[in-house]
Amino acid sequence: MKSLLSVAEAEQRIHAHMPSFGTEHVALDAATGRVLRQSVQAERDQPPFDRVMMDGIAIAAGTGTLCSFRRAGLALAGMAEQVLDDPAACIEVTTGAMLPRGCDSVVPIEQTRREGERFVLSDGYEPTPGQFIHPRGADCREGELLLRSGTRIRSPEVAVLAANGVAQVEVAKRPSVTMVATGDELREVDQALAPGQIRRSNDRALAAALATRGFDDVERTWLPDDLNIATQVLAGLLATRQVLVLSGGVSVGQRDFVPAALHALGVQEVLHGIAQRPGKPMWFGIGPQGQVIFALPGNPVSALVCAVRYLLPALEHAIGLTAAPPVKVVLADAAATHPTLTCFIPVDVQHDDHGRAMARPQPSLTSGDFSSLPQTHGVVELAPAAGAAPVGTIAVLHRW
Amino acid sequence: MKSLLSVAEAEQRIHAHMPSFGTEHVALDAATGRVLRQSVQAERDQPPFDRVMMDGIAIAAGTGTLCSFRRAGLALAGMAEQVLDDPAACIEVTTGAMLPRGCDSVVPIEQTRREGERFVLSDGYEPTPGQFIHPRGADCREGELLLRSGTRIRSPEVAVLAANGVAQVEVAKRPSVTMVATGDELREVDQALAPGQIRRSNDRALAAALATRGFDDVERTWLPDDLNIATQVLAGLLATRQVLVLSGGVSVGQRDFVPAALHALGVQEVLHGIAQRPGKPMWFGIGPQGQVIFALPGNPVSALVCAVRYLLPALEHAIGLTAAPPVKVVLADAAATHPTLTCFIPVDVQHDDHGRAMARPQPSLTSGDFSSLPQTHGVVELAPAAGAAPVGTIAVLHRW
Repeated sequence: MKSLLSVAEAEQRIHAHMPSFGTEHVALDAATGRVLRQSVQAERDQPPFDRVMMDGIAIAAGTGTLCSFRRAGLALAGMAEQVLDDPAACIEVTTGAMLPRGCDSVVPIEQTRREGERFVLSDGYEPTPGQFIHPRGADCREGELLLRSGTRIRSPEVAVLAANGVAQVEVAKRPSVTMVATGDELREVDQALAPGQIRRSNDRALAAALATRGFDDVERTWLPDDLNIATQVLAGLLATRQVLVLSGGVSVGQRDFVPAALHALGVQEVLHGIAQRPGKPMWFGIGPQGQVIFALPGNPVSALVCAVRYLLPALEHAIGLTAAPPVKVVLADAAATHPTLTCFIPVDVQHDDHGRAMARPQPSLTSGDFSSLPQTHGVVELAPAAGAAPVGTIAVLHRW
Repeated sequence: MKSLLSVAEAEQRIHAHMPSFGTEHVALDAATGRVLRQSVQAERDQPPFDRVMMDGIAIAAGTGTLCSFRRAGLALAGMAEQVLDDPAACIEVTTGAMLPRGCDSVVPIEQTRREGERFVLSDGYEPTPGQFIHPRGADCREGELLLRSGTRIRSPEVAVLAANGVAQVEVAKRPSVTMVATGDELREVDQALAPGQIRRSNDRALAAALATRGFDDVERTWLPDDLNIATQVLAGLLATRQVLVLSGGVSVGQRDFVPAALHALGVQEVLHGIAQRPGKPMWFGIGPQGQVIFALPGNPVSALVCAVRYLLPALEHAIGLTAAPPVKVVLADAAATHPTLTCFIPVDVQHDDHGRAMARPQPSLTSGDFSSLPQTHGVVELAPAAGAAPVGTIAVLHRW
């Protein structure tokens, strides 16, 4: 580990080295949660016609002060345009129908009574031109830009895509990712534990972090503490996967063989060591075919911090997601800072009665303590500073 | 529609009628995003042993002031406990190893130099007992409650589940849901449009809203404006699905046949009409076998508002998700209120430099205007009031 980079420098270097993973077309039903990589213009005016907003009768209110109208026809939603050619008559209409030509007003059914083939307005009811009509193009005009590339597709975007005839949606491809746990001491979740052994959890937690953001082409594997075996396994992964995320093996100890194994495979180190706590040993490099390799520390909290601060933003940047503005929160308790290291502190966030996002630090004894993380929403980022960050400090939140 | 219920009354009635959908066991890899329905206790102390936190040497610092130690062994992560029986000696250790018996301190490798079979401490370095040791049980004790039933499983929860040997996780079953679009004017996203026709979008947008919260057993279908056909299709759905979500057909007009069709099938109306805008005509009922039926208005904005205010919270309540505290935000602009109706206003939310969640209303002309919703994060709920809600009003946010 050479001189430590700042958090901002590290982020900038990583983003600068991220490849593009391309785009693909998926059926609209499969597009939820994906990142849109096309723009979408209005297919037609919206509404596409003067649209009736109430069940009732359509009349030509602008032509007189009649209070009784002959029923001259019916316009249901979905029918082609009807025509009213007698201003003393009306056309019965339903919500969603095209306003009949010759009409300029809709009277709700509740304001009428039927007398044989006539509709009579309620006593004193005075329809005004334009009422209960949603005019063609009032919401948007044909060709208007409705969705930009880089948008995460949620329910409102699906509504717009569907309404504008986008049956196949161009979205960002998601990279193939393998999570690699390292260490002889690790056993799987369903294996018996001998003294000195612990369960593999980082690879699963990191896969969950990716799944939460919609990255689902994620596999998991494991490396023993053996440079030769590790090199062999990593060679196979580099040949088939676009992103490798290792946890463990990146400190300065004798068993921290990951950088050596990667170097032997032609992976170029881009950074090793960030001025932060936890997560200082973080390593990032680029493979011969542009594969990206994140080697995160092995401590569970460190690994998750590096995932939400670097890995997830880098992948989201690479697939073209428009970055959201930072979420600024208020420290509800003082939190320790460090004179030269950026500190990431797990916090529980609740909105108070003033609409402020109050972040209560849940300090853990060590970066290995993840038992209390389920009570938190993410981490706040505290820049290097002497002393502590007092109550009321504003900090950026990174959600799990 | 009879007298209108308040929003709170409507929510309470709906929740009171929601069935339980049961639980199931899934593999841990498939548990992300699901709702945990078991509690999880610590499998062992965490850490399960006095854990070495740095690569270096383990010594018995409490016994003297030596500065040079014979190398008496090696303790790697994953190995069974080693023993130091000579306080003048040391055992070489790696991060994650069990602290050898007889040792009480770890000296980082950087603070030593190797001289043959001895390790010599850096000049003036004074190890203190306990340093660089993560003591057994410091994070949690065997049997301690780590996860409660009702928790949404994210990356921290996956880490805890994996570390504590939960290979098969008891989670809430997700109900089978069918989204039913209604109306003769509707055409599918890839069909040609005749005058007067519009595209089906509500069923897709509602399915996306559910998918965003992890409900993925969602089908879509369509009903024409024909009571007999509608009754037949609904009978089939009631026989096979647990939740039906209809959009359209619940106003008071002649084509609003949905309540009649449901009544004919033995569905009991629980509520019809809520004192709110948009979404006033909302209908909710219970089928003969406990099926739940949400009939939402047909306007796209109304349908989405009713989904995030009633449908999603009700489903989350039914599957046992612990309700999150309300997200209170600050109105950045004034917004219209109504003397007797609760108003739901689409807002864009940004955190300002004081950590406040500022909600900027994006008023739409009508409840049919969904073209601008992609610029919003959700809706704020404004209680009935005369006049307008001024800038600075605190309101609860419901996210899309």
